[in-house]
Amino acid sequence: MMINFTVGPVQSSEAVRAIGAEQVPYFRTAEFSELMYENERLVKKFANASDDSKVVFMTCSGSGGMETAIMNCLNRNDKALVINGGSFGERFVELLKLHEIPFTEIKKEYGKALRAEDLAPFEGQGYTTFLMQKHETSTGVHYDIDMVADFCMRNHLFLIVDTISTFLCDSFDMTATNTGIMITGSQKALACAPGIAVMILSPEALERVQENHCCCQYLDLKLALKNMERGQTPWTPAVGILRQINVRLKEIDAMGGAEAEIARCADLAKYFRDKLVEYHLPFEIISESLSNAVTPLHPITQSAYQIFLKIKDEYSMWICPNGGDMKDVIFRVGHIGYLHKEDYDKLLAAFIDLREKKFI
Amino acid sequence: MMINFTVGPVQSSEAVRAIGAEQVPYFRTAEFSELMYENERLVKKFANASDDSKVVFMTCSGSGGMETAIMNCLNRNDKALVINGGSFGERFVELLKLHEIPFTEIKKEYGKALRAEDLAPFEGQGYTTFLMQKHETSTGVHYDIDMVADFCMRNHLFLIVDTISTFLCDSFDMTATNTGIMITGSQKALACAPGIAVMILSPEALERVQENHCCCQYLDLKLALKNMERGQTPWTPAVGILRQINVRLKEIDAMGGAEAEIARCADLAKYFRDKLVEYHLPFEIISESLSNAVTPLHPITQSAYQIFLKIKDEYSMWICPNGGDMKDVIFRVGHIGYLHKEDYDKLLAAFIDLREKKFI
Repeated sequence: MMINFTVGPVQSSEAVRAIGAEQVPYFRTAEFSELMYENERLVKKFANASDDSKVVFMTCSGSGGMETAIMNCLNRNDKALVINGGSFGERFVELLKLHEIPFTEIKKEYGKALRAEDLAPFEGQGYTTFLMQKHETSTGVHYDIDMVADFCMRNHLFLIVDTISTFLCDSFDMTATNTGIMITGSQKALACAPGIAVMILSPEALERVQENHCCCQYLDLKLALKNMERGQTPWTPAVGILRQINVRLKEIDAMGGAEAEIARCADLAKYFRDKLVEYHLPFEIISESLSNAVTPLHPITQSAYQIFLKIKDEYSMWICPNGGDMKDVIFRVGHIGYLHKEDYDKLLAAFIDLREKKFI
Repeated sequence: MMINFTVGPVQSSEAVRAIGAEQVPYFRTAEFSELMYENERLVKKFANASDDSKVVFMTCSGSGGMETAIMNCLNRNDKALVINGGSFGERFVELLKLHEIPFTEIKKEYGKALRAEDLAPFEGQGYTTFLMQKHETSTGVHYDIDMVADFCMRNHLFLIVDTISTFLCDSFDMTATNTGIMITGSQKALACAPGIAVMILSPEALERVQENHCCCQYLDLKLALKNMERGQTPWTPAVGILRQINVRLKEIDAMGGAEAEIARCADLAKYFRDKLVEYHLPFEIISESLSNAVTPLHPITQSAYQIFLKIKDEYSMWICPNGGDMKDVIFRVGHIGYLHKEDYDKLLAAFIDLREKKFI
């Protein structure tokens, strides 16, 4: 059995896996609609979304959810600000270009936190929307959403937040931050199989959807929202994963809700980070502002990707490699999904073993 | 336990369900790439696709696959012919409108087969592409693809075939029919969980993809094809379902390949249809040209939707309801997925019981 420390897909609880073993039911039924309404209610509860917000479950990846938000809520009359501090910020930039939304990039060096001076030049400059990763997963930087939210409220900007890898790992309050759309995925802290993007839309987002033309039928939120009125989707969704999400949301609710899940994740992250220091492992934490979801590490003595391969092939564990120009420089250790302190003990023992063998 | 006679999601084998119970592995690995290559090889084998064809696995519904084909292979310089004989033909029409592809509709009455005179007026009229359901799932009409293929080859049309509900139920030869793109889904005869659209692209389709601009990054086949060169996908796919597909394709291969699976499906369809006649049930088969995948029925004495509800709530079986203006007029009984003759005996007994109770 491999132990999975990546940031998705992550390990699922037994209850979630048991659903995976069941026959997938027919879904154009009142029974399935009830399940979808319950999913909507619990997602809104955990994000503290307003009663008049709506949730859609799209059968696509988190990146598909990011594009869905842009395609359905923005147009060429917008003027966007976007934080770009890693692979996912870069993806927002690519999407804004593809969909011809005028934008300005707030480029951050990998690992750097957002500061007040990053936003200051854009006060009162007529921007209409702001896009950000709450947690830039590629570099493990958890941006200060309260600072962004204040800026957006002061300047009347519509706020699109990718919370894909941070939802249920770090606190998030959709109402307090006046977030327009939040996006997350089934395979992060929700710890289900990948295949569903979850999006919460505020009343302002709902208005934007109705006013916009979406160039893609499959990702058209007008159709998704219309169908969700009856607890359904326009196209056959990943029914099995939606049923897993249902079990998992109820599991979280029964265990104390979002706060308890965030605390559990924080506890795992702290345990691992404390041990890194205690054992003097040759890794540097490369983020100025950590999320509980992941610890991004720069190994000083060996290629990050070679460490990933070694840990996979010789210790039966997956740590999370990075891509592109970060491939040899950064690997990540996740704290989401069904993991326990004993799992980290095994990973730390592997690192210590590799140091003894002079591999790192 | 419900018995599922719908046309998707359908019942899965134990081996496929066992995969659903496993932890979903990390996928940016050589191991997962190998699985994807094996999936590609077997899908091509079962469709008799040419060696230089390519397969992509998109995390979306079959309808998402239909749109992906249009967005990536057609443009405003095309002149399309499309068969519209039910809900899925109508969907092709909607998509051609949305993407501004000039087209002419070959409108067929529900249940009617395609005839030579339907195509004759369009000989030598400068059409560039042809779109069809091989099997119009909503009305259970299996169109004559050989007739269309001849027409397309004679007139040099690029052929897009939705084989979503017919692949592995009725014979299909991608090479002999010179099909440009075929589309299927994970939850039909592949009998896995829904969430993956499978598409085979011929060399001509690959050329069209490279020459076209796709308005949607998530469904951009240039990116999907580029990533598939290394057995990967641009975005996190529904990894669990791709692993189910792998087990299922190998299962089919071991049992005798596409021919054996088609024969199994044909046998179930014949068994059910023979019994319908034998028991004089008050249902009319509404299709002139049946697929092995489904039997579309018009109940003479009761609303089709009321029969669906009754069978669900009182007999714990799902037959497949229709939507829109067919809701009260047609229901369908599927022959795909993990079903046996004894299952049909139970369904037939339920119908007989309903007749005795004067419900039908």
